[in-house]
Amino acid sequence: MSKDLTGSDRIWETAGSITSVPGFSAAGVACGLKKNQQPDLALIVSDRPAAAAGVFTKNLVQGHSLQLTKNNIQNGQARAVVINSGNANACVGPQGLADARAMASETAQLLGLDPGQVLTGSTGVIGLPLDMTAVRSGIKAAVADLSPLPAGGHAAQKAIMTTDTRAKECVVKLNLAGQEISLAGMAKGSGMIYPNMATMIGIITTDLDLPASQLQKLLEKAVQPSFNRVLVDGDTSVCDMVLALAGGRAANSPLTPGSPDEQLFLDALTRLCTRLAKLIAADGEGATKLVTVRAEGAQSQEDAFKIVRAVAASPLVKTALYGEDANWGRILTAAGYSGASFDPDGCSIWLGDLLVCQNGTAVQFDEKKAKAILQEKEVTIKISLSEGQAAEQMWTCDLSPDYVYINGSYRS
Amino acid sequence: MSKDLTGSDRIWETAGSITSVPGFSAAGVACGLKKNQQPDLALIVSDRPAAAAGVFTKNLVQGHSLQLTKNNIQNGQARAVVINSGNANACVGPQGLADARAMASETAQLLGLDPGQVLTGSTGVIGLPLDMTAVRSGIKAAVADLSPLPAGGHAAQKAIMTTDTRAKECVVKLNLAGQEISLAGMAKGSGMIYPNMATMIGIITTDLDLPASQLQKLLEKAVQPSFNRVLVDGDTSVCDMVLALAGGRAANSPLTPGSPDEQLFLDALTRLCTRLAKLIAADGEGATKLVTVRAEGAQSQEDAFKIVRAVAASPLVKTALYGEDANWGRILTAAGYSGASFDPDGCSIWLGDLLVCQNGTAVQFDEKKAKAILQEKEVTIKISLSEGQAAEQMWTCDLSPDYVYINGSYRS
Repeated sequence: MSKDLTGSDRIWETAGSITSVPGFSAAGVACGLKKNQQPDLALIVSDRPAAAAGVFTKNLVQGHSLQLTKNNIQNGQARAVVINSGNANACVGPQGLADARAMASETAQLLGLDPGQVLTGSTGVIGLPLDMTAVRSGIKAAVADLSPLPAGGHAAQKAIMTTDTRAKECVVKLNLAGQEISLAGMAKGSGMIYPNMATMIGIITTDLDLPASQLQKLLEKAVQPSFNRVLVDGDTSVCDMVLALAGGRAANSPLTPGSPDEQLFLDALTRLCTRLAKLIAADGEGATKLVTVRAEGAQSQEDAFKIVRAVAASPLVKTALYGEDANWGRILTAAGYSGASFDPDGCSIWLGDLLVCQNGTAVQFDEKKAKAILQEKEVTIKISLSEGQAAEQMWTCDLSPDYVYINGSYRS
Repeated sequence: MSKDLTGSDRIWETAGSITSVPGFSAAGVACGLKKNQQPDLALIVSDRPAAAAGVFTKNLVQGHSLQLTKNNIQNGQARAVVINSGNANACVGPQGLADARAMASETAQLLGLDPGQVLTGSTGVIGLPLDMTAVRSGIKAAVADLSPLPAGGHAAQKAIMTTDTRAKECVVKLNLAGQEISLAGMAKGSGMIYPNMATMIGIITTDLDLPASQLQKLLEKAVQPSFNRVLVDGDTSVCDMVLALAGGRAANSPLTPGSPDEQLFLDALTRLCTRLAKLIAADGEGATKLVTVRAEGAQSQEDAFKIVRAVAASPLVKTALYGEDANWGRILTAAGYSGASFDPDGCSIWLGDLLVCQNGTAVQFDEKKAKAILQEKEVTIKISLSEGQAAEQMWTCDLSPDYVYINGSYRS
């Protein structure tokens, strides 16, 4: 089912975690930032300097830990990533950056690194100072717990979760010139999700050997059809980033830019990011189903994007999906106000494989079949225009009462 | 409380309905389009040809009844408006326009008018053919029930409601050169609300005598700070319009364009539209409170608008308002991704009169006071920037579980 975008016999998925890549170890511990001894501090360590790349939220407001990472990643290499959940370390004034620096230097000291080799992340409530006593004890415990086994990665993933209900991990292998290369990723993200290069927190590791500048270009390409095509509620967080670390243990020959081998690695990276993105959409706050919105036949890529974005963001479409009500009028309505240019009389809509609107007009359809399609855990909405060849897709979820309950009292 | 925008000793509000304007009568009846004998057909009639103006949804998809009105209003005058609720008469193919025409001609015949003098509107479910037997019987009953008393207007207002829970009516009087002029309005709109010149259905009557072209210009100005500043869920309906009918019974001297008298009338019209817009926001689907979002100190009007629009649309801001949780980080986050250009370090945020964020940084505030402010039925969020002088405001409501329940099964 995951071969839809980047299928290839030379790329396959396996079980594992972020530590399934040779050279990486990880840990996840509970240090008291979250209630009830929930894990809230994650550490990922490369056994050698890893080429480092990152994409960051486009929000004007940026968390302090993220700001430090944006600075440190300019070195082009990193050895460790330390992330806390339960507190966003955002909008707390100069203390915020000082605390992020302390997170990095504490980690560096215990691991014998330079503080500039440590990347930091924080996610949770905005505007509260970090409890640095807790963070310091967490870092100590995480360093002691570091493990190259899958369990180390699983623990790290749990420790970056906020309102997530399910783990978001993926391991992809590829056969590159006869050599097996590993990629692994973990992500968190459940609410405040709208792609703007990029959203949520995602960490990717690989044993491929490539320079940071090349990794950066490939990461930017890979997040476009994946992390940048997932929308839960249209809100873009101030703490979101996707980081990639390439440890280089594979000791492969250099990947020539533009070569088929580079493309193959990009395909594998895109597949990994796509899997994580879909896991995020499926686990959207309060979600009962994963929804794929496709637009085809648009005049331009931009118009196709406007349509899938408007349909995926529409609270009325999302509540109808929750209610399993084939209210396609709301889909056409959202396309109509999306800002895309098209003739509604050339617009047709499918729920799964069921045509519900043809050339802008209602068609008779089997309501029972529609209901059955909408009751599935995965639903596809297709909007077909008669304007051109451009197509886009986006993953989202339905809007349930639980979204409101989860977010009505997030701070308390 | 309503003098905030258009206060003047020469403008005041009184009780009444759309028929409180001399020369207008109205009726509202139940003809079977809605369940449980709910009123679903409204008729408003002017006793003489009235100058007619209208603003219409910018959605590319447009309901058939609305399309007929856009055509007929080009005559510059109208005698009657007939509106059904329970069915949007949209996206049903050529039959939709034929049905709208039949609504107009049936009404015209019974009232002895030309069909081109009748404006039509429909609101409700998209994609189902209108039950014209019901509509015809409704028109007959409405013509028989026409009344110039306030009750006639009240009945008409009830008959255009869909998920509305409260009446939306307003009467404004003004003293124009010693003469008392009346304006009255009614509106529906509860979900699928986002202003794009214009949303919802609104009907305005006045006894002022002025040409249609002048009325059109004034209506376009009046809807900008009123109907175009209300947002419930960000969805823009395909059936929405605001119509104004000026019967001319006042037989006043012509209003010179740009004169103080014309401005006074515009102020009264804006006040009427503002009152109706706020009633719509306060009665948003599932709403428990009316929320005013203000942005000040922006570089440009456009930036200020982007900020209030993003904050008012944010599901995370709206769920926190429902939960009465002073989660100002979400407000700053929404401003940050709004597309407006500003320095977050110059951004301060107030809930009511309580400062919760100063220069982009958390401030200590009394959580009990914040809770008390958020428990009110009306809440104001103010975002102050340090960029310039531009300010904007928008009315919205909170997002409650009831929004989801209402919209999860709208068709059934």
